[in-house]
Amino acid sequence: MTEKSSWLAAVTFDDQGLIPAIAQDADTGTILMVAWMNAESLAETFATGRAVYWSRSRQRLWRKGEESGHVQQVRELRLDCDGDVLLLKVKQEGGIACHTGRESCFFRRLDGDTDNAVWTITDPVLKDPDLIYQ
Amino acid sequence: MTEKSSWLAAVTFDDQGLIPAIAQDADTGTILMVAWMNAESLAETFATGRAVYWSRSRQRLWRKGEESGHVQQVRELRLDCDGDVLLLKVKQEGGIACHTGRESCFFRRLDGDTDNAVWTITDPVLKDPDLIYQ
Repeated sequence: MTEKSSWLAAVTFDDQGLIPAIAQDADTGTILMVAWMNAESLAETFATGRAVYWSRSRQRLWRKGEESGHVQQVRELRLDCDGDVLLLKVKQEGGIACHTGRESCFFRRLDGDTDNAVWTITDPVLKDPDLIYQ
Repeated sequence: MTEKSSWLAAVTFDDQGLIPAIAQDADTGTILMVAWMNAESLAETFATGRAVYWSRSRQRLWRKGEESGHVQQVRELRLDCDGDVLLLKVKQEGGIACHTGRESCFFRRLDGDTDNAVWTITDPVLKDPDLIYQ
C-alpha cells in the first residue's frame, strides 16, 4: 500500500478513522454481521482476502477467526454511493459468524405491535461459545 | 410508544442517539442501502411498516420515498447481538433504493490487486435521478 492508493482514497472514514463493514454470505445472501474497519484493516483485508476488522473494544486489529477459527474468506468487496459503508461478500468458515455461536448476529426479530413488542430469538446456537473460544 | 417500550430499550444508540440500519431486499437478499435511525424513526418505522430514517445531513426524519416515491415496506425488523445494528427486510417500491437511480447503493466493486485496484461500477442506472427527484 502506498500513499497513491487511490482506491483507498475513495473510502470515507469517520472522525475516528473507521467505516462500518457488512459481512454477507456470498452464496446465500444472509447478512452475517457488521463490524468496523480502519484503513489498515481494509488494506490487509484486500491484500490477504481474509476479513480483518478494527475491534473498537480492544482497540486493535481483529483478524476474524484468529481465536475461533471462523475465518471469513472475502469473495468481493463493495462500497456504497457515499463511500462510507463497505460490503464484504464472504465465505464464512465453520458457518458461524456470531460470538454467540450462531450463523448470523441478526438472530432477533421484532414481533408483535408497538405497544407490546418483543425481540424473538429465531436462530439456533450451532456451537457452544465455550467450545469456540477455549 | 411509552417509556415502558422495553423492545426499544434493547436497542443501543450511539452517543448521537443513532443506530445504523441495513435495508435488505426481503425477496432477493440484495443489500440495498445503509442509513441511520434514531429512536423516533425506529418507533415510527415499526408502527407504520414503512422505513423512516434520520437524515444526518438534513437533521430531520427522512421518510424513505417521501420525494422519490421509492417507499420501503418493512417485512421484518432484526437486531444484532450487540443491539447496535438494525436489519430491515423490505420490499423496495420502484425497485430503486439509491439516490443515483440504482437498485442498490453498493454498486461499486473493488477489482485488481492492492497496488493497482479500482472501484468498478457494476450496476446500471435504472432511472435518471433528475426524473426521480423533480
